[in-house]
Amino acid sequence: MPHAIFWNLQTNSIPRVVIIGGGFAGMNAAKLLGGLPVQVTLVDRRNFHLFQPLLYQVASGGLSPGDIAAPLRDILSRFPNVRTLMAEVTGFDPANGRILLHDQSDLLYDTLILAAGAENFYFGNPQWQQFAPGLKTIEDATEIRSRILSAFEKAELETDPEVRRSWLRFVVVGAGPTGVELAGAIGEIARDTLRHDFRAIRPAEAQILLLEGAKHTLPQFKEDLSDKAERALIKLGVRVRTGVMVTTIDAAGVSLITDAGSAERIEARTVIWAAGVRASGLGKKLADAVGAETDRGGRIKVSGDLSIPGHPEIFVLGDLAWFEKDGAALPGLCPVAMQQGWYAARVIKLRLQGKAVPPFHYVNKGIMATIGRASAVADLGFIRFGGVFAWLAWLFIHLMYLVGFRSRFVVAIQWGFQYLTFNRGARLITGKDEPS
Amino acid sequence: MPHAIFWNLQTNSIPRVVIIGGGFAGMNAAKLLGGLPVQVTLVDRRNFHLFQPLLYQVASGGLSPGDIAAPLRDILSRFPNVRTLMAEVTGFDPANGRILLHDQSDLLYDTLILAAGAENFYFGNPQWQQFAPGLKTIEDATEIRSRILSAFEKAELETDPEVRRSWLRFVVVGAGPTGVELAGAIGEIARDTLRHDFRAIRPAEAQILLLEGAKHTLPQFKEDLSDKAERALIKLGVRVRTGVMVTTIDAAGVSLITDAGSAERIEARTVIWAAGVRASGLGKKLADAVGAETDRGGRIKVSGDLSIPGHPEIFVLGDLAWFEKDGAALPGLCPVAMQQGWYAARVIKLRLQGKAVPPFHYVNKGIMATIGRASAVADLGFIRFGGVFAWLAWLFIHLMYLVGFRSRFVVAIQWGFQYLTFNRGARLITGKDEPS
Repeated sequence: MPHAIFWNLQTNSIPRVVIIGGGFAGMNAAKLLGGLPVQVTLVDRRNFHLFQPLLYQVASGGLSPGDIAAPLRDILSRFPNVRTLMAEVTGFDPANGRILLHDQSDLLYDTLILAAGAENFYFGNPQWQQFAPGLKTIEDATEIRSRILSAFEKAELETDPEVRRSWLRFVVVGAGPTGVELAGAIGEIARDTLRHDFRAIRPAEAQILLLEGAKHTLPQFKEDLSDKAERALIKLGVRVRTGVMVTTIDAAGVSLITDAGSAERIEARTVIWAAGVRASGLGKKLADAVGAETDRGGRIKVSGDLSIPGHPEIFVLGDLAWFEKDGAALPGLCPVAMQQGWYAARVIKLRLQGKAVPPFHYVNKGIMATIGRASAVADLGFIRFGGVFAWLAWLFIHLMYLVGFRSRFVVAIQWGFQYLTFNRGARLITGKDEPS
Repeated sequence: MPHAIFWNLQTNSIPRVVIIGGGFAGMNAAKLLGGLPVQVTLVDRRNFHLFQPLLYQVASGGLSPGDIAAPLRDILSRFPNVRTLMAEVTGFDPANGRILLHDQSDLLYDTLILAAGAENFYFGNPQWQQFAPGLKTIEDATEIRSRILSAFEKAELETDPEVRRSWLRFVVVGAGPTGVELAGAIGEIARDTLRHDFRAIRPAEAQILLLEGAKHTLPQFKEDLSDKAERALIKLGVRVRTGVMVTTIDAAGVSLITDAGSAERIEARTVIWAAGVRASGLGKKLADAVGAETDRGGRIKVSGDLSIPGHPEIFVLGDLAWFEKDGAALPGLCPVAMQQGWYAARVIKLRLQGKAVPPFHYVNKGIMATIGRASAVADLGFIRFGGVFAWLAWLFIHLMYLVGFRSRFVVAIQWGFQYLTFNRGARLITGKDEPS
């Protein structure tokens, strides 16, 4: 087996930290480790950090992939002790402090940080994926964008009124923040963006259905905000159906069963999955290798310092970590991942100095979801509010956390144009050469 | 066969114009026909107009696809007599004034404009395409971008020095404007953009080879400008080899033969094709259907008014047209396509008014090519110049012709950032989930 990779800093006396995953947790850990007396290797399958909270804006044609993704190398280039490798992790060898890569090479670590995030999960129905893409990657987003825009194109070409209606019916499964954001964006595309663009169809006649298994839209939020969000969605032409379970998804639509037990069929050519994610498969691989406990979602149970019990040298962060607080696991949110990334870097620093480490404490800054133009809901703990102020707060926070000054500036301009003109700048159907 | 498409303007008394292709020729014809007493249908396989002169900037990570592509529907939405169909044309039935679409429907026309452009051509070696993508579509551009960036990633991971060198060797085949622009951009990526990003390799050690069969770089230009361009390329680390013919392209590199007859092999993992295009296959289909004459490149010979001899109702424009001027065919350039689009619309207008039509006259505004940062060459006929002034002229002209105020603004900002920081905002490796 060829050994690791040449690196000009390679000496055996400097502790080696390997970080798997360049998301909010891994990237922030790497940034804080930059400048410390450690050798850091960040491994990611992709060459960029993705600002996932704005991924739905790529899926709805408002932003380009390049606006919300920044090359990891670029972000980390100013730290000479941090290197980035685009590679796929294929296995763990904790006994030898080693991870295995796709090209049969390996990497040695003194400290390992696993922060590989989550992936779409179809509750045991992987065959639904082809009919109802989820929204986790840039490719997911451009695929969903193509499907939404193509549906209007197909409707314009279609002469059978029944089929045409099914092209103009959009189903979003799952009314968490992503589902609400997507459904709201499709509503705006149909009512505003495409208003004057077609001759045979009226895009505003599109039906947008948002399906949710729980009793309320945005089940993570308090009921008053759920109600506010639901009213805002209705204004955008989105019909919200709570208390329904999807039983089948196929090329022609969705079958569901209501709380009352009645079955229904919805003919819709465009279905988007926003109902569930689970921990990356690397979680299970690592848990098996070290004998760690995982929950139903595949998350690894971590101690108070975010390391695996019995393995203080292995941290698990972000969507992959099962960290209990007040009897419940912390949710898979950006602020959680960011704070955990910072914390893990701090633990490594304090350990180098031989100092004691206080346990991880999550500072809950609140949760927000945007619904559409000048409409959002926010629960900051001490205050709950909706409407235009929540939306402005959402805009501000997301711009501030966007990586890189250029991205921030370009996104602000795109949003400004979008607000003023109702137009969306990146309405491209890409990925295939044929319209058929 | 189901008949065409419902359209709220459909009456039989208004002449029907069908335009195939939403490039510079077709889109400009459609815009000028907007508002005239004709029903216009623009058919394109894609939903957007692509600003091809800046495609190489997407391929080199400077711009996002959304920056240089604008939805055709959006551009044409203000003309109620113009509709857009995303469809693939599969055949022609000129006897009945009919074109056939991919979904078995058809479209009737009184006047047909074929402006379907050109496609990559490998001189009878289609198997080269997989190893050396050309640059005609958005997908081509993101594929080339992924290959260029991945090559540096693979080099960083590679331990065999010989293989690593072949990952850091880039070959661009064809030293026309596209080849020169691409080679120059790769030079800048290697020397400036990625300068601090790697730990095991020095990106500036990348070798960039620009191969050309003719005696000079930019053979379309006068020799003094060719020399200027060549000197500018050398400064960017590009090695130009003229008078060489590629004989094989495979996954590991390129074989060539020199003018002097000696054979050579270049080991390079990244090869880009910029050596040839030919007319879209629709040209041959139409030529066969009406019995028109075509040249070796598949272009259809047109009369002085750009219609097919014997078929005044069928115009052929842009890269598909073989229009002789001073014994040579007009080249496949944007200004030619634009002027032909405007002209064809004017012919249709004058014919409606029963007026005589003067033959098409191409106003040569000159040719330009950009090499890199602050470096370009321009031949405006009455003056030839290179350097920073040519570059500024190039920037200005390309920004002015970019469709849509938003695009222009965002591109100007991206260029500003790129100029100041040497950074490129859209360095994403997309299109696949695995690095291997």
